[in-house]
Amino acid sequence: MGEEIFGEKLHEECGVFGVFRREDDLDVVAAAYYGLYALQHRGQESCGIAVNDDGIFYKRRELGLVSEVFTKSALEAMPRGNMCVAHCRYATTGTPVRANAQPFVIRHIKGPMALAHNGNLTNSAELRDEFELSGAIFHSTSDTEVIAYAITRERLHAGSIESAVEQAMPKLKGAYSLVLMSPRKLIAVRDPQGFRPLCIGKIGESDVIASESCAIVAAGGEFVRDVEPGEIVVFDEDGCRSIRTHCGQKGGLCVFEYVYIARPDSIVDGASVHRARRRAGALLALEHPVQADVVIGAPDSGLDAALGYAQQSGIPYGIGFLKNKYIGRTFIQPDQRLRENTVHIKLNPIADTVKGKRVVLVDDSIVRGTTSKQVVQMLRDAGATEVHFLSSAPEFLYPCYFGVDIDSRKDLIAANHTLEEMREILGVDSLGFLSVEGVKKIAEGCTCGLCTGCFTGEYPIPKPARTEKSKFEHKISENAND
Amino acid sequence: MGEEIFGEKLHEECGVFGVFRREDDLDVVAAAYYGLYALQHRGQESCGIAVNDDGIFYKRRELGLVSEVFTKSALEAMPRGNMCVAHCRYATTGTPVRANAQPFVIRHIKGPMALAHNGNLTNSAELRDEFELSGAIFHSTSDTEVIAYAITRERLHAGSIESAVEQAMPKLKGAYSLVLMSPRKLIAVRDPQGFRPLCIGKIGESDVIASESCAIVAAGGEFVRDVEPGEIVVFDEDGCRSIRTHCGQKGGLCVFEYVYIARPDSIVDGASVHRARRRAGALLALEHPVQADVVIGAPDSGLDAALGYAQQSGIPYGIGFLKNKYIGRTFIQPDQRLRENTVHIKLNPIADTVKGKRVVLVDDSIVRGTTSKQVVQMLRDAGATEVHFLSSAPEFLYPCYFGVDIDSRKDLIAANHTLEEMREILGVDSLGFLSVEGVKKIAEGCTCGLCTGCFTGEYPIPKPARTEKSKFEHKISENAND
Amino acid sequence: MGEEIFGEKLHEECGVFGVFRREDDLDVVAAAYYGLYALQHRGQESCGIAVNDDGIFYKRRELGLVSEVFTKSALEAMPRGNMCVAHCRYATTGTPVRANAQPFVIRHIKGPMALAHNGNLTNSAELRDEFELSGAIFHSTSDTEVIAYAITRERLHAGSIESAVEQAMPKLKGAYSLVLMSPRKLIAVRDPQGFRPLCIGKIGESDVIASESCAIVAAGGEFVRDVEPGEIVVFDEDGCRSIRTHCGQKGGLCVFEYVYIARPDSIVDGASVHRARRRAGALLALEHPVQADVVIGAPDSGLDAALGYAQQSGIPYGIGFLKNKYIGRTFIQPDQRLRENTVHIKLNPIADTVKGKRVVLVDDSIVRGTTSKQVVQMLRDAGATEVHFLSSAPEFLYPCYFGVDIDSRKDLIAANHTLEEMREILGVDSLGFLSVEGVKKIAEGCTCGLCTGCFTGEYPIPKPARTEKSKFEHKISENAND
Amino acid sequence: MGEEIFGEKLHEECGVFGVFRREDDLDVVAAAYYGLYALQHRGQESCGIAVNDDGIFYKRRELGLVSEVFTKSALEAMPRGNMCVAHCRYATTGTPVRANAQPFVIRHIKGPMALAHNGNLTNSAELRDEFELSGAIFHSTSDTEVIAYAITRERLHAGSIESAVEQAMPKLKGAYSLVLMSPRKLIAVRDPQGFRPLCIGKIGESDVIASESCAIVAAGGEFVRDVEPGEIVVFDEDGCRSIRTHCGQKGGLCVFEYVYIARPDSIVDGASVHRARRRAGALLALEHPVQADVVIGAPDSGLDAALGYAQQSGIPYGIGFLKNKYIGRTFIQPDQRLRENTVHIKLNPIADTVKGKRVVLVDDSIVRGTTSKQVVQMLRDAGATEVHFLSSAPEFLYPCYFGVDIDSRKDLIAANHTLEEMREILGVDSLGFLSVEGVKKIAEGCTCGLCTGCFTGEYPIPKPARTEKSKFEHKISENAND
Repeated sequence: MGEEIFGEKLHEECGVFGVFRREDDLDVVAAAYYGLYALQHRGQESCGIAVNDDGIFYKRRELGLVSEVFTKSALEAMPRGNMCVAHCRYATTGTPVRANAQPFVIRHIKGPMALAHNGNLTNSAELRDEFELSGAIFHSTSDTEVIAYAITRERLHAGSIESAVEQAMPKLKGAYSLVLMSPRKLIAVRDPQGFRPLCIGKIGESDVIASESCAIVAAGGEFVRDVEPGEIVVFDEDGCRSIRTHCGQKGGLCVFEYVYIARPDSIVDGASVHRARRRAGALLALEHPVQADVVIGAPDSGLDAALGYAQQSGIPYGIGFLKNKYIGRTFIQPDQRLRENTVHIKLNPIADTVKGKRVVLVDDSIVRGTTSKQVVQMLRDAGATEVHFLSSAPEFLYPCYFGVDIDSRKDLIAANHTLEEMREILGVDSLGFLSVEGVKKIAEGCTCGLCTGCFTGEYPIPKPARTEKSKFEHKISENAND
Repeated sequence: MGEEIFGEKLHEECGVFGVFRREDDLDVVAAAYYGLYALQHRGQESCGIAVNDDGIFYKRRELGLVSEVFTKSALEAMPRGNMCVAHCRYATTGTPVRANAQPFVIRHIKGPMALAHNGNLTNSAELRDEFELSGAIFHSTSDTEVIAYAITRERLHAGSIESAVEQAMPKLKGAYSLVLMSPRKLIAVRDPQGFRPLCIGKIGESDVIASESCAIVAAGGEFVRDVEPGEIVVFDEDGCRSIRTHCGQKGGLCVFEYVYIARPDSIVDGASVHRARRRAGALLALEHPVQADVVIGAPDSGLDAALGYAQQSGIPYGIGFLKNKYIGRTFIQPDQRLRENTVHIKLNPIADTVKGKRVVLVDDSIVRGTTSKQVVQMLRDAGATEVHFLSSAPEFLYPCYFGVDIDSRKDLIAANHTLEEMREILGVDSLGFLSVEGVKKIAEGCTCGLCTGCFTGEYPIPKPARTEKSKFEHKISENAND
Repeated sequence: MGEEIFGEKLHEECGVFGVFRREDDLDVVAAAYYGLYALQHRGQESCGIAVNDDGIFYKRRELGLVSEVFTKSALEAMPRGNMCVAHCRYATTGTPVRANAQPFVIRHIKGPMALAHNGNLTNSAELRDEFELSGAIFHSTSDTEVIAYAITRERLHAGSIESAVEQAMPKLKGAYSLVLMSPRKLIAVRDPQGFRPLCIGKIGESDVIASESCAIVAAGGEFVRDVEPGEIVVFDEDGCRSIRTHCGQKGGLCVFEYVYIARPDSIVDGASVHRARRRAGALLALEHPVQADVVIGAPDSGLDAALGYAQQSGIPYGIGFLKNKYIGRTFIQPDQRLRENTVHIKLNPIADTVKGKRVVLVDDSIVRGTTSKQVVQMLRDAGATEVHFLSSAPEFLYPCYFGVDIDSRKDLIAANHTLEEMREILGVDSLGFLSVEGVKKIAEGCTCGLCTGCFTGEYPIPKPARTEKSKFEHKISENAND
Repeated sequence: MGEEIFGEKLHEECGVFGVFRREDDLDVVAAAYYGLYALQHRGQESCGIAVNDDGIFYKRRELGLVSEVFTKSALEAMPRGNMCVAHCRYATTGTPVRANAQPFVIRHIKGPMALAHNGNLTNSAELRDEFELSGAIFHSTSDTEVIAYAITRERLHAGSIESAVEQAMPKLKGAYSLVLMSPRKLIAVRDPQGFRPLCIGKIGESDVIASESCAIVAAGGEFVRDVEPGEIVVFDEDGCRSIRTHCGQKGGLCVFEYVYIARPDSIVDGASVHRARRRAGALLALEHPVQADVVIGAPDSGLDAALGYAQQSGIPYGIGFLKNKYIGRTFIQPDQRLRENTVHIKLNPIADTVKGKRVVLVDDSIVRGTTSKQVVQMLRDAGATEVHFLSSAPEFLYPCYFGVDIDSRKDLIAANHTLEEMREILGVDSLGFLSVEGVKKIAEGCTCGLCTGCFTGEYPIPKPARTEKSKFEHKISENAND
């Protein structure tokens, strides 16, 4: 409930983007800049662009939002180039330091390579050990450096960079939607389950790769198609070709992309995200009918589902909150200079909508529940006579190993309480979650199998044997000699 | 239509705020900080806070948003104090330079005084000349410095600061909602017409003054009542008292506060702003019925009216656009590195909502119309079969002299075109504006007369004889000797 | 001893600069920028430039060094203009806040005026009261605002700005070297005693005013002559003319300008500053002969006098210290993260010069003596067998009311200790100060009488009746009503 | 001649520093901070510190001066730790980008390692190719990453990190003074020729490693001894031990360290740098006697040699210039807003010293000569009747491959002109350089052989077969497939 406002939200991992220029007047850096703006919701910790100017690679990557990292002077300082790779990130594996910002640019025996990655490997610790044993050194704690080693090691023997990718894929377990740039090629790679979205499009004659279709549109282009799970798509001077060796496995697109992560105006694997959210609301209305006077959504993530609920139930839709759009990351928390809870600064109920009404409040999900409780109290203070809380996602009960940061169960309210306990904690008159069966039906037209592991504990591929967050940060072990 | 996104919006002037502490644990600077966040929509050019620490005045005021000006270290550097005055500003009179940032802090014969002002005087040029003739020097081009002179000149003879204010008011023509701080007193002053809102509230036992009720709530307080047009409210150690000498004149609250300026969750002079906007939409539905499949609002300013239209007309309400919330002031305009119009970056239609539909698009107003035209085209590109454009404000035909920056008629589309011409320019199937009679009815329960001068050319008080924007910027005159 | 390195130095007040363009290709802002760089030693707290572009005044003034305030983009944002006034400041009267940064730009009945001031009035409190009683309001605590009122009040009746200056001068007591800019004129004003230096020069055909000749040279110009004490020099389209009504009074140029404040390459009132310092050293050698092996100066302020001592005495001159040129204002003091005294970071003795030697150490003055003690110990640690400390200024015993910040006697070592006590405190083998008679002789060729009040307590004009540092900062007085 | 002021100076490479704490109250980061301040003259492009906090490595490294990179908040954010490595850099190999900032921190099979390097390998291109062929990927263009691979590859088989260093050294050709940090050890390594200085000291009981002795003193410590060319010094919990396998080869300490690079208060390989410079001046007086009235040095690099010349020749020493100490890297060059050459802003002659005099001007060296010419003209304008220019270094005729950036001969004035031509270009009455024989004698007491290759073309080890500046920046090669 309003979770995204208060830092309780689930942290989606990253957005990736790439452009291969085929018309001289396209500015690939500008296209990436607009693309990153459209992908900013996928990661606000750091961002970067690497440009390829006839084989010379130039990069800029920093902690910060696109608007902070790519200032006017920073953009002007970048060469125009004929290809680029871009990335925005919220850390999952690896601590939030600049060394982990992407794109990665490295040099190997065949020249420079840039890499942008969305996802999470489940065997990165094992791979890291294996590469170190044959002399590798690591500069970061990111999975992306592991992927870079996996590909470049294959390239010592493979005949081309795309063959190296093809041969490296069986070693890489887990989620990876990649954009890779070599001196002459731009390559899109999606893991065989397709955990994270990836699609391709056109800006005029030029080719573009993006995590979501909204970024292609923002860059002035048109969506063409999704990259198939397991597919490798290569763009070079000869055009575009596809390697499908690893396609056809069991699909596992993260259903939470539809519920919360992706932008409502995106089309992911054939299904409209906005429509999926309205369907979630409509299904919620069928599963959890309530006698009420108004349906409101938690801004902004619950609005679509609330509208779906209202339309299905026939209860009027209302605008329940004013969300302060000027609250940013520099907002100073109340504990520093003010005593009371200051939830009103970020989100204020519109009394006219809820006063004297029985209110249905819809949000995308409930994680810890602490904010939801405050928001419910705000509605009661504003005069709501009843508050019914409905979540368009099922209860979070299990960790995600594929890029969404919910691997600790101890904070998940649903993993530790019964429905009735949660209802009491939140202080609502009734509480309901969309069922797992329901959530599987929201993405009408989706061409890919779905992963619902965080709700069911059943994953498309095995869970990781080891998890390690940041190997640079270990203590001195007993038997070390150095 | 999406005007606020593209810099075409009307520039409301300012927000003012003040706190008089009566309980030791209240941090008046923190309260002002939260209050300013809630008033940020009234002015994003500069902001400031002046604190009174037992007679010692300390101020910080800078160009920039609250989040930029009041960083953690800036807040920590401010003394705690027992009173403060705060301000956020968008320049109307005076160029956008820091010298015009408020609050003003000056020293006169009776000690220091701080002043925050929302509004616009119509006789400031005459007053400035008068004061200069008796030896005044001016540091800024702001009306606020003129008001400071008017009050302090009276204070030479008046027995108290509030008497000086009372005696100065007949000299001040136009709009002024003021918060004034002297060594021991905090004073709220609203001009006799009440052009701009001003209200008072309580944070615990302490008193608070604000442009809008939403700021009182954000600071953890409760709204008590509006300051009456013409009223002077004095807070000091003896409590609160009111001077009503100038009350009872013809009211002229700006109706555009309800249509666009004020925040939807505020209550202004007895009327809910959100309800006023929904009523505007409902009245629009009665005045301009359309056969359509969906009603959408231009984010964010048209959403409330769109909902009112949908509810009155029975046509389903839809979420028509995704607005990119990461686009800020540092966004680099497309002309610099990208060729096409990039309206898609800021606002993208949700195809699922409009495709194959007859669409009613509601916005608060139309100023120049250039953006509206682009947005209409976006809807058609997304598959809308018809687009009907409805404005919840009447046509802008006349300048505002009281604080809203529309004093040049040459850019106003409605002042230069017939309705049919405008319809063709915008490229819509039909176009409608709420009538002047309609807009007068939206503020249900409003206790104050309304100014609709920008629509009708009829103002509650006479127009200014001279207008001057910035006297510091004049060229050398022929007969000057210096 | 090394006082300037450790923040113990006396704070000289300000530098002023002005340009009147007579050739189109002169960029007056660039000239001022270079001039300010050359005057930076006179004030590092804030700086500013005001430009006159055909009657439109534009200013930039900020806390910070010239290099910080006038960045490339800041310079580019300034109009080119035909006249400008510039200032750098170290606060004497007035707290170190931006409101006191100069130049002051105000508007009065005859148009805009800009003002840059070096000096200190002794009757500013009285004048401030007088002006407030007739309705003045003050925005700052600076003497300069008082001067602005004095001049503009006269301008109500006087026939020209220069007449107003002429008539205001008898009201202004104390030190003031001013540069004043009106729409058409640039005016230099020096108080009748000439406490602070002021000179004029030429850049090609254009006229320039500066605190010191080094600034004229830095701006690409040539020194012409000093402004006479009491003189008003007016530059306008008709050329240059002088008003000498107030000339001919008893002169009082601050002797400490020669000893420490002015730059060695400047010529002040006819005397070379470098030569004056060498003469001080030579006179010191005559007054305080020592048996020693090497003479070293404290960098940078004692080097010239040390060379004079060496040449007069015949004892070899040596380079005794390496001063770290990268230590700036952001250097973090040792108490924060390191235990010991870290004088070695800023200043390190060159062992080869002092080891096994009897050392004469010359510095310009001794204020508090705490640093000198540390430096002496450093020399002993480096192997000096004897250390003889000689000051090229006499003992500071009295406050300065004319612009140098030594008005508190309690920290002055010489005001509180005998010579022998001081010798013991500093830990030196012998200690000597140049005599008052000696210091009066250093400025060979000086055309102006000298003020030696800080050494003798005898001033050219009466001391101030009241001193007030910052009237904005007073506590609430008992009988105030506001 | 004043070269260092105008960006013509030779760019020395780097400074390195390390601390191993043996007393709990030592703050190793603070020690490194002070040490870096003292080494700032060796590199102003970037700096960094890596701390080891019980095996967890933390680093900060950025483009900028120590004062810019290590702000108060940056210092406070660093853990205290028990060991650290620090570095300041001016790029020789590698472009000036942050990726090349040091210390390098990487992770290999045995854990993390940090590395700071001063020098230049002559076979880095060959080593880079070799490592890439066995699967290495490179993140930077720095030699330091090559060294990191060389050591970690050996560590796969060697029994300890110091053994790995010992085994890697024969592969590394060229100049390297290293500080290396592993989880439990701090290691100093100097190449067998000792091209760059490196020494060790004590802060209380704790150990410290530094490029120059002045940094040890600045950190509050005492110099103990130089690291011998070829020596490996290991600090760990068991104390300190030395590996001398590679000692005893032909020494090649860069003589230019004495002439210009090192700080005058440092002792390098047994010789005082200040004394070496005075000796250079004295030898110059013997080799190039002149009839003159005053000897002046170009600040700051020529002052010591000028004093030596004066003392040997008996001609009086004078202070010839005032150098503006406020001119920093943000100074805006004259071409932007001012027409004439503005050498006067940075350096102004003191007329009193040179007027009517025959002047000997001493500087450390002449590189391109363009600035020298301007400075000579300044002296003539100030009234010098004769100017004799003497350089305390011989003519630069050959490139340096070991860390000083003079590898392009085309800009070297001496490599392209006869002595008489140079005399005419500079516009001096006579011109002289110290002889190669002379320069070899300046470092009295030096325990190491000297490299004078830049003067003679004879180097202690073979020149590199290939030179490559930045392999990331190559164009697409014809036969690449990627």
